[in-house]
Amino acid sequence: MPRIDSTVTHLSSSLSTLGEFGLISRITAGVSPGGSVITGIGDDAAVTSLSAGMQLLTSTDMLLEDVHFRRAWHDPYRLGRKSLGVSISDIAAMGGIPRWALLSLAIPSDLPLDFIDEFMRGFLAMASENQVFLVGGDTCSSRSGLAVSVTIMGEQYPDLIVRRAGAMPDDDIWVTGTLGDAALGLKLAEDAGFCPAPPAEKSLQNQSPPNTHCSPDRAGGGMQSLLSRLLDPNPQVLAALTLAEAGLVTAMIDVSDGILADYGHIAEQSGVGGRILLEDIPFSHSFHSCTASFPAIPYHLALSGGEDYELCFTADRSNREKIADCMEKCGIAMTRIGIVTRFPGVTVVNTDGTPYNSRAEGFNHFR
Amino acid sequence: MPRIDSTVTHLSSSLSTLGEFGLISRITAGVSPGGSVITGIGDDAAVTSLSAGMQLLTSTDMLLEDVHFRRAWHDPYRLGRKSLGVSISDIAAMGGIPRWALLSLAIPSDLPLDFIDEFMRGFLAMASENQVFLVGGDTCSSRSGLAVSVTIMGEQYPDLIVRRAGAMPDDDIWVTGTLGDAALGLKLAEDAGFCPAPPAEKSLQNQSPPNTHCSPDRAGGGMQSLLSRLLDPNPQVLAALTLAEAGLVTAMIDVSDGILADYGHIAEQSGVGGRILLEDIPFSHSFHSCTASFPAIPYHLALSGGEDYELCFTADRSNREKIADCMEKCGIAMTRIGIVTRFPGVTVVNTDGTPYNSRAEGFNHFR
Repeated sequence: MPRIDSTVTHLSSSLSTLGEFGLISRITAGVSPGGSVITGIGDDAAVTSLSAGMQLLTSTDMLLEDVHFRRAWHDPYRLGRKSLGVSISDIAAMGGIPRWALLSLAIPSDLPLDFIDEFMRGFLAMASENQVFLVGGDTCSSRSGLAVSVTIMGEQYPDLIVRRAGAMPDDDIWVTGTLGDAALGLKLAEDAGFCPAPPAEKSLQNQSPPNTHCSPDRAGGGMQSLLSRLLDPNPQVLAALTLAEAGLVTAMIDVSDGILADYGHIAEQSGVGGRILLEDIPFSHSFHSCTASFPAIPYHLALSGGEDYELCFTADRSNREKIADCMEKCGIAMTRIGIVTRFPGVTVVNTDGTPYNSRAEGFNHFR
Repeated sequence: MPRIDSTVTHLSSSLSTLGEFGLISRITAGVSPGGSVITGIGDDAAVTSLSAGMQLLTSTDMLLEDVHFRRAWHDPYRLGRKSLGVSISDIAAMGGIPRWALLSLAIPSDLPLDFIDEFMRGFLAMASENQVFLVGGDTCSSRSGLAVSVTIMGEQYPDLIVRRAGAMPDDDIWVTGTLGDAALGLKLAEDAGFCPAPPAEKSLQNQSPPNTHCSPDRAGGGMQSLLSRLLDPNPQVLAALTLAEAGLVTAMIDVSDGILADYGHIAEQSGVGGRILLEDIPFSHSFHSCTASFPAIPYHLALSGGEDYELCFTADRSNREKIADCMEKCGIAMTRIGIVTRFPGVTVVNTDGTPYNSRAEGFNHFR
């Protein structure tokens, strides 16, 4: 797509000198071939080949600067990883095998070329860890912030694909890993007014605008661990594939808007309800240590905080042992947090058996 | 993807009242089922099924307000059509059958809900005309302008897919339709300082910011035709499929950055060059009538203007008659404009046989 308006004059000289095709070459320099990619970057469309008997899974996410991320907080390497990771998480939640990605970047004039290099290094590292191949995309200039749009494609045999609909009354409700870490990390960082320390990998000097208040020293190890969950989430591909291929789950979703909202989607689409036991929600050591001085455990961060990128799934009670086996095989914790009910509505029950009163209902982009 | 920053407070009350899921319901209200869509909108990923023996074709485009389009110029209905049309054009250029689309929208706070409704009406009309099914997407709030990201998926038998590489020395160079209309429309509209009249279909009252100078009366019929090419391009799916399925073409590309740049991609990837004859470039009646008072024909608009969304293809000289048959069958003009040369470099030759001197090299987003 050419640009309708040719009057933009504030582009960084480096970007301007490089030009569109130079930039594309730079972006795609680290792209490796493979993965049933027949024609990758450089034609009107990419050509790929599905495995025999498999169906195509597709999902897309848009990430906007100052809406989904802040450049002062998010080092480009981890932003690149997360941009792809959140999409991979969607394929995992269907029990799918992630395969190919498309990446569109709208680049503001003040973005250093190094930022793009680091972003791509992170994006391609996440791709490589999950055997995903970048096959195409789009680049253009942006008059406001950086905008990233990622499309992910995956595949799976029809009978192994797991949908949101499928949960049955009396099924167990499970989650992988721990909940609330990312939301707590965000809250603590916002309260303290500091930005996260750079990741262990090489990072940039110029990534923070001058008006941010960075005091990385104030962030302890627990805090760094929480922030890592926010800035560099790890899609649960292995756990999802192991569960799906073993045929153990009746419904699955990735937890991106908080467990209440996301299990709510399973319940709604399955025509059931659910009862979640507060005391069974899994928290990390970092979550506990960073909230030790709080008057009460901030359960709402786990229930409605968002950005966990764990899996929530339902399974017949007879599968508990097999799921424990999966857990051991994957090295990923899986915790039962409740029961699917016949009647609609999701309730949360306190440790003393009384209903937990929370108005939080997950993240709503337009509220 | 939830939003990292929960402090945005300037959203329009209507959008805010509707909420994210209400908006998604509104956007998807007109989506029709069909087209091998097994699971469409509403799960973590869409599930679709490729036709037996076909390969997957994918492409993505991002359209940003004030970069690719202006809201004052572009009525939402035609913007919706174009957002999908330019992506369909990429699948067509590969000889592919367009099948499914993903749509992401980043929506500014001041965007009326009616704008979104009209945008979707246009998007889905373009989809329906091309038997494309919307299967997923993403919505979020934008702190600057409207951002649209479209991913298109298509399919084709491997031996019918046409790439940029494949042009052979002495092949003819062809284009469909006429060139330069969109670029001339843009130039005339910018010079005159007016915005286009609304399309024949129902359009919105509130689409123009107050600071635009609208004088639709000043736009004549020829001008409206040129602007239509700019605002509502028509992807050449039928022509592309007819040519590809008849096995008549050696290379193909869609003309989005100007014929010089786009044929240049064919030449580069095929390891050949080309000679384009200026007098053979096809112009529309509107182009001729609107440039009748010009000191000379503005050939550069056809060579480097962009946004034509016609097809440029190469074919063996022995196929001239068969291509004429295709042309008749499709009702779409196809014109020979030059010859593929053995040696690299694309030259343009004047009507008097001398080399045409143009520095224009197609649109570059970062220059």
